[in-house]
Amino acid sequence: MAKEKAVRKTIKTASTPAPARQAKAKPAVRRHHDANVENILGSAASLFAEKSFGLASIREIAARAGISFPRIYYYLRNKEELLYLVAKRGIERSITSYDNLSANVTDPAEKLRLFIENHFSSSTASPAEAKVLIQETSKLSEPYLSEIRAMERQYTETCRTLLTELARAHGKELSRARSRILVSLLFGTLNSMGNWFDTERDMPHLHEITNEIYRMFAGAVQ
Amino acid sequence: MAKEKAVRKTIKTASTPAPARQAKAKPAVRRHHDANVENILGSAASLFAEKSFGLASIREIAARAGISFPRIYYYLRNKEELLYLVAKRGIERSITSYDNLSANVTDPAEKLRLFIENHFSSSTASPAEAKVLIQETSKLSEPYLSEIRAMERQYTETCRTLLTELARAHGKELSRARSRILVSLLFGTLNSMGNWFDTERDMPHLHEITNEIYRMFAGAVQ
Repeated sequence: MAKEKAVRKTIKTASTPAPARQAKAKPAVRRHHDANVENILGSAASLFAEKSFGLASIREIAARAGISFPRIYYYLRNKEELLYLVAKRGIERSITSYDNLSANVTDPAEKLRLFIENHFSSSTASPAEAKVLIQETSKLSEPYLSEIRAMERQYTETCRTLLTELARAHGKELSRARSRILVSLLFGTLNSMGNWFDTERDMPHLHEITNEIYRMFAGAVQ
Repeated sequence: MAKEKAVRKTIKTASTPAPARQAKAKPAVRRHHDANVENILGSAASLFAEKSFGLASIREIAARAGISFPRIYYYLRNKEELLYLVAKRGIERSITSYDNLSANVTDPAEKLRLFIENHFSSSTASPAEAKVLIQETSKLSEPYLSEIRAMERQYTETCRTLLTELARAHGKELSRARSRILVSLLFGTLNSMGNWFDTERDMPHLHEITNEIYRMFAGAVQ
């Protein structure tokens, strides 16, 4: 838990440029509020992942976050809003960290490699959140569902563009059907990691694993 | 439902050699019993897939199978036994149909292609059962869990052997670590199909999709 929070803080810090933070330093009350929100979202993600959205209760989420049951409603309206916020934060993080990583990269092959590595490390850093994104978001109702699906599309379109660009760099034009299939297969491969990746056994092979995936998909479009 | 039953029957018939069936024709009572068991397992698979093992009740399974609630206990002891039987039948089917398909094939590349196609078509023919195998079997307790895990290992070892043989045919030796990673990635790719495969949109591309996967994994070991 402490480790997951540390990772989250690092990612958040990385996504907010330092000068901007200094210029708009938040008052202590606001920082405390944000820390509580982060804490609640982390507890919600882990409970949704363990028990599913349907079976986890706001009462349990409040208890895990160390916030009293009535007081948690100061931060959110209902359980569905929590699922929406957990999903939104997860996708935003992946998008932001990929954008930062690839900001100065022009080689399409290297961009694809970075996209795969970034998705992988986001998932392994926050496995509960990754599981919620994969398994639970379909339980959202409107307007939350459409908003999350639109963010997912933005993210997968980034990936499709990378494959298309890489194919073009090798003088090939990917058909829309084929790029859709390749993107689906790539996300399938990446998102099923949670089912078999064993931190102790597989973390030493992390680079090897992402490289294996990169070579297969780069090879497919070359 | 009617369609799924038809598919199931075809697979079962295909896996039982015709002469054996003729020699040991079952009495009508036994056939009726078997049909009820098939019916119960199909209803259990669909309810476990829709609601999860924990939330589906024997009462609902009986209702969906059209069997009275007390009478269903003539066929099974409890809900866990049903999960075990659904999983066992699913893995056995995939193993049997692959064995039949590859019986006279010696080319390791062709065997890998058949393995991928067979896994894919088993999953698309019985999506509920495939989902149960992927998401619900971890909820089994002993001795069921060990038995199912042993069957899964047998199935994945078949796949690992295929990759190793294909590498050898190209003069390469796959390390144990690498073949494990490739097998995990391949099952990840295949088993996440259920999350994106849309029958209407993707069935016309089925051969293209399995070929894409085959080329990536065959390419990885060559």
